[in-house]
Amino acid sequence: MAKLNVALFGTQFMGRAHSNAWRQVGRFFDLPVEPVLKVLCGRNPESTRAAAAKLGWEEASTEWEAVIARSDIDVVDICTPGDSHEPIAIAAAEAGKVVFCEKPLANTLAESERMRDAVEKAGVLHMLCHNYRRAPAVALARQMIEAGEIGTIRHFRGTYLQDWIVDPQFPRVWRLEKARAGSGALGDIASHSLDLARYLVGELTEVSGLLETFIAERPLEDGSGSGVVDVDDAALALVRFESGAIGSIEGSRFCPGRKNHNRFEINGSLGSLAFDLERMNELEVYREEGPGSGFRSVLATDPAHPYVAAWWPPGHVLGYEHTFTHTVHDLLEAIDRQELPTPNFEDGVRNQRVLEAIERSSASRSWESV
Amino acid sequence: MAKLNVALFGTQFMGRAHSNAWRQVGRFFDLPVEPVLKVLCGRNPESTRAAAAKLGWEEASTEWEAVIARSDIDVVDICTPGDSHEPIAIAAAEAGKVVFCEKPLANTLAESERMRDAVEKAGVLHMLCHNYRRAPAVALARQMIEAGEIGTIRHFRGTYLQDWIVDPQFPRVWRLEKARAGSGALGDIASHSLDLARYLVGELTEVSGLLETFIAERPLEDGSGSGVVDVDDAALALVRFESGAIGSIEGSRFCPGRKNHNRFEINGSLGSLAFDLERMNELEVYREEGPGSGFRSVLATDPAHPYVAAWWPPGHVLGYEHTFTHTVHDLLEAIDRQELPTPNFEDGVRNQRVLEAIERSSASRSWESV
Amino acid sequence: MAKLNVALFGTQFMGRAHSNAWRQVGRFFDLPVEPVLKVLCGRNPESTRAAAAKLGWEEASTEWEAVIARSDIDVVDICTPGDSHEPIAIAAAEAGKVVFCEKPLANTLAESERMRDAVEKAGVLHMLCHNYRRAPAVALARQMIEAGEIGTIRHFRGTYLQDWIVDPQFPRVWRLEKARAGSGALGDIASHSLDLARYLVGELTEVSGLLETFIAERPLEDGSGSGVVDVDDAALALVRFESGAIGSIEGSRFCPGRKNHNRFEINGSLGSLAFDLERMNELEVYREEGPGSGFRSVLATDPAHPYVAAWWPPGHVLGYEHTFTHTVHDLLEAIDRQELPTPNFEDGVRNQRVLEAIERSSASRSWESV
Amino acid sequence: MAKLNVALFGTQFMGRAHSNAWRQVGRFFDLPVEPVLKVLCGRNPESTRAAAAKLGWEEASTEWEAVIARSDIDVVDICTPGDSHEPIAIAAAEAGKVVFCEKPLANTLAESERMRDAVEKAGVLHMLCHNYRRAPAVALARQMIEAGEIGTIRHFRGTYLQDWIVDPQFPRVWRLEKARAGSGALGDIASHSLDLARYLVGELTEVSGLLETFIAERPLEDGSGSGVVDVDDAALALVRFESGAIGSIEGSRFCPGRKNHNRFEINGSLGSLAFDLERMNELEVYREEGPGSGFRSVLATDPAHPYVAAWWPPGHVLGYEHTFTHTVHDLLEAIDRQELPTPNFEDGVRNQRVLEAIERSSASRSWESV
Repeated sequence: MAKLNVALFGTQFMGRAHSNAWRQVGRFFDLPVEPVLKVLCGRNPESTRAAAAKLGWEEASTEWEAVIARSDIDVVDICTPGDSHEPIAIAAAEAGKVVFCEKPLANTLAESERMRDAVEKAGVLHMLCHNYRRAPAVALARQMIEAGEIGTIRHFRGTYLQDWIVDPQFPRVWRLEKARAGSGALGDIASHSLDLARYLVGELTEVSGLLETFIAERPLEDGSGSGVVDVDDAALALVRFESGAIGSIEGSRFCPGRKNHNRFEINGSLGSLAFDLERMNELEVYREEGPGSGFRSVLATDPAHPYVAAWWPPGHVLGYEHTFTHTVHDLLEAIDRQELPTPNFEDGVRNQRVLEAIERSSASRSWESV
Repeated sequence: MAKLNVALFGTQFMGRAHSNAWRQVGRFFDLPVEPVLKVLCGRNPESTRAAAAKLGWEEASTEWEAVIARSDIDVVDICTPGDSHEPIAIAAAEAGKVVFCEKPLANTLAESERMRDAVEKAGVLHMLCHNYRRAPAVALARQMIEAGEIGTIRHFRGTYLQDWIVDPQFPRVWRLEKARAGSGALGDIASHSLDLARYLVGELTEVSGLLETFIAERPLEDGSGSGVVDVDDAALALVRFESGAIGSIEGSRFCPGRKNHNRFEINGSLGSLAFDLERMNELEVYREEGPGSGFRSVLATDPAHPYVAAWWPPGHVLGYEHTFTHTVHDLLEAIDRQELPTPNFEDGVRNQRVLEAIERSSASRSWESV
Repeated sequence: MAKLNVALFGTQFMGRAHSNAWRQVGRFFDLPVEPVLKVLCGRNPESTRAAAAKLGWEEASTEWEAVIARSDIDVVDICTPGDSHEPIAIAAAEAGKVVFCEKPLANTLAESERMRDAVEKAGVLHMLCHNYRRAPAVALARQMIEAGEIGTIRHFRGTYLQDWIVDPQFPRVWRLEKARAGSGALGDIASHSLDLARYLVGELTEVSGLLETFIAERPLEDGSGSGVVDVDDAALALVRFESGAIGSIEGSRFCPGRKNHNRFEINGSLGSLAFDLERMNELEVYREEGPGSGFRSVLATDPAHPYVAAWWPPGHVLGYEHTFTHTVHDLLEAIDRQELPTPNFEDGVRNQRVLEAIERSSASRSWESV
Repeated sequence: MAKLNVALFGTQFMGRAHSNAWRQVGRFFDLPVEPVLKVLCGRNPESTRAAAAKLGWEEASTEWEAVIARSDIDVVDICTPGDSHEPIAIAAAEAGKVVFCEKPLANTLAESERMRDAVEKAGVLHMLCHNYRRAPAVALARQMIEAGEIGTIRHFRGTYLQDWIVDPQFPRVWRLEKARAGSGALGDIASHSLDLARYLVGELTEVSGLLETFIAERPLEDGSGSGVVDVDDAALALVRFESGAIGSIEGSRFCPGRKNHNRFEINGSLGSLAFDLERMNELEVYREEGPGSGFRSVLATDPAHPYVAAWWPPGHVLGYEHTFTHTVHDLLEAIDRQELPTPNFEDGVRNQRVLEAIERSSASRSWESV
């Protein structure tokens, strides 16, 4: 079987999640090509070496340009903070690599467009990692929608709620600085709801947005005083879709008890679907079937459900990390067939267009076209 | 015990629900005054007589002005469609009656204001029936908020979803005509979410609204062709509160499987609360208490919970209709004390102001002040 | 419409619940005969008079034999503690009355049999009030089973759990004395699970029982010391049905958080059903339908569901007390048709046979035939 | 870091699950020793070679005795069917290996005792793999019980329900043959409930059991006719614990919709706990705290919860397979400390004693001591 050498950039949360996916995918799925965990790239030599050993990479490097220049590297996987996505992706594209990039594609629309242009010009395969599309229950929802099982979609309601900064004494970490993170709840979590909206319902045409920062100043991490929070703590939007459907999208980090509540509900003319990431093995399904109708909880662990046959018998649930394993699986299949996978950089651009429209709308206090 | 003679206007769904409340309240609660079901008023002599007998009223009448003129009537209870609320309420006020009016107070803000002015000028006690405030679980939520148990409120998320007109062949009933119903999902059900928002979080300052009609034409009920639907099938709004909280309100009749899904979630700085009318005996409560924290389902059937001591032992659930029984109970208590109950006509005016701001915003495509 | 005069014996919890049913049934259902709340009988003249006024009875009496002797009384409804059921029921039967008796039919099998013999000898209609059979969701379960929708039943799992005597300082009330209550959790609550088992699955053939008393001595109510608890705190049984199904039945008052957890699950060859009284408007239904299968929550508030058409629109839930209203409704229908309703005294005898077999088995430490 | 060479016996479901655990444990946890996936042993050379490559083992072998004789093997992990556990485990013990054995320890009590005696005589460390003890939510339940948070335990209710053989045309696979599987639902799944009962509540003293086979004959897998099912389709037992608690344990493969429903509920004097493997990241907790009490759903994904700190941020759920990863982690820690881990072979013997008592009781139709 042909081998494919991967270089991964980033050693933190996403670096760990992607490493696991590369390592595990061939243990469960039958692959057309075999990924090799070749190089892990980071900033600090020591911690990168430690991470490479821990996460299963053959080599560690802090020389990102040199790594991209290596002829034996086939895939560049970008898991760094958003402000460094553009240079890495463009260099990788120009070097002819397959480019796999963690969401959001970039911190701004302009960056996203340049990245999209670069991969298209270079003619390289590229993929955006929006992992929740590959939760089996979400992929099942998509299958049911495509099969017409819930009819014409009328409503999408997406909320991604967390609670990790409710305490005003929680420090002003980098995710709360616009210069580094781009935005707050909007780009970090509402963007997931948005991507699911586009995946399941289609393109958006216009939005009315509301961004709010509840705690404007927080202690600095180093104890040297306090710093300004210049990103949104919560982001809400009303949205319209090309199809005529309407909906709402919300992200907030101020919802006690909602640890990772990435939930959506979709109402169609024939039925409804709902999902909650905290119970990610379940899809709630309603179909109008007379007096015996009711919302049912489909445990998405049947071999007939997407991705599941590779794993365990029915009723043995999957964890969070395998949304990445499935994404990597589909990327490898696409590489083998030399087809462009989805979501890709064009999706990243479109997502970013909606996020920017929400920001514009929050400022203009009016609906804005996407 | 003093008796209080009631005249009820309206013989349909709400007429039945209010009749039941008047009939039952004294069977469970110890009252300061005894309500007497004196006269039921309707349009059709025969059906009104039948309804009066069925529902327990001493007399039936189709002469509404004559009934209001009767000196032996103490309370006028208005359960007719919205377009007749104003004349009945104003006549009742001028006749010095206690006026109890089903929501929405009126079809327009102007009507609401005239009604409010009339009761104030006449100096009569008056109450608006927004029954869900008196579900024990909702009243418990209010108690917990007032006691500071969830801290400063950041978010309110209210949705009232139903599915009764999903089928495009469902006829163009009166509730789908603007001239008679005033609005669609907005005034009928989103108004409940709005009233709960005001009850639990406080006054709203501005809104961004979206009204949508999915099915613009429907068969007429008499089979004579089709008619235009000129009310909203769905109404969504982003909202801001005086307190600094933000939120969203939605009503839709196009959500398969959601039969009477009047749900809210509130996130505060110390905890969260959630409620769903389809499980109206339960209040979901989260409080931050360390690693053992979790959303708990409080079965609001304990004698310590609002209204419950009058009913059954713990775990014996109450039904929908007793939200009215509790409302009537509180009205009788207020009458005895000669105090203005809440919600009252001023609340009706304020609710109507928000609904009209949502309509304006949907037209202007911008945020509108309330 | 013919009138039917009712005399009710008992003024406590069950007296209140039955009174409500008699009072309300004609307000919602179209009845073939009209029940009249004629006499309420109790022990104490003053409290009986007060209860009669509160609950809507024309007269109050403490002379039970005189009441039964009255020729204008058509129905005798027995809501007294179990040790007085027999004399009242037999006198009522001998006087030719319809006899309606709250469960358990009696404290012992022998009493039950004498009561059953008396009503049969007198040829009077009689009914046992096992109210939970008439929760719409439970009646729907029965319909689905009869229609073969879950196939051949393999398993019944019934638990009725409460928590009101968990505290060892809770006093030794009459329900904890064998002489007055007959048994503890067994006759009080496990008996409900048993009746549902017989209603939904059929007759039982043998049992293996376990009775346990966790707190053997408790403070007396009058503060004069402590008294022995000689009834069971918890009762468990494995059971076999005539049909070949197997199962378990449990009642316990020592389950913190379970306020009124009367739950069953039934597994058949084609599907499963489950019910929980604390969410009594829902029936959980699973039917094997391929990869889209899942337990669904059927909100039993559709007009097509049993009893529901008389009440409110879909999604407007019913409360506990209407299980009695429905029972009284069916009794009145049966009286009109002069047919024996179910469950009746023969059911009471059969239930008692199973309860006694459980007691015998607990003592013999072996399976016992019913 | 010291290395530890592992030989794993078995290439099917459990072989895959254990392989994954050995492979993954060091990627997330900081280990005192490093496990090396040295040899995978199976029966068929070709499929064993393929499995070894797929699952990450250095070598493949069909010579089990030779593998055990190798001086470079430190740990023998047994994942074969129950009838071969004894010879492998005894040989491994005699060769001085650490012995890790999948549950059930053996098919009979006698075999279990010989295995236990062998490891004790050899003085080797040994562990029984009852993986569900290491689900974070279950380990959290144990912590709460040990901390006294639910007080004195009164009730344990364990059910492990599946539905894979409901169809009478499902073939007579080896798990339905007593000679190979030992027993049916009893040893396969009720044994898990039993092990959790012992882990959470303590030792059992006596049982009343019921074994039932609903479908006595099934088609053979090779299409050559039908074969007898001589194991139980369902196993139920009432149980008593040394502590005075009482309970029930059930396993069944005839419960449509229950895919992997390993559920327990425990009621103590101060609170209750419940768990369902299909929602394995949640622990339901009730503590008596006045009118605000309710069952809460604790999402066991907090760093303070057992094992969780090694994985992902709060709200990112774990899957089934990591119950094994945690077990292997604890085994490695125990090896490093040279301490006997739990559960071990003595636990296997005690579990088997209870299972045999249930079988005896089912035959004798009486309670049997363990």
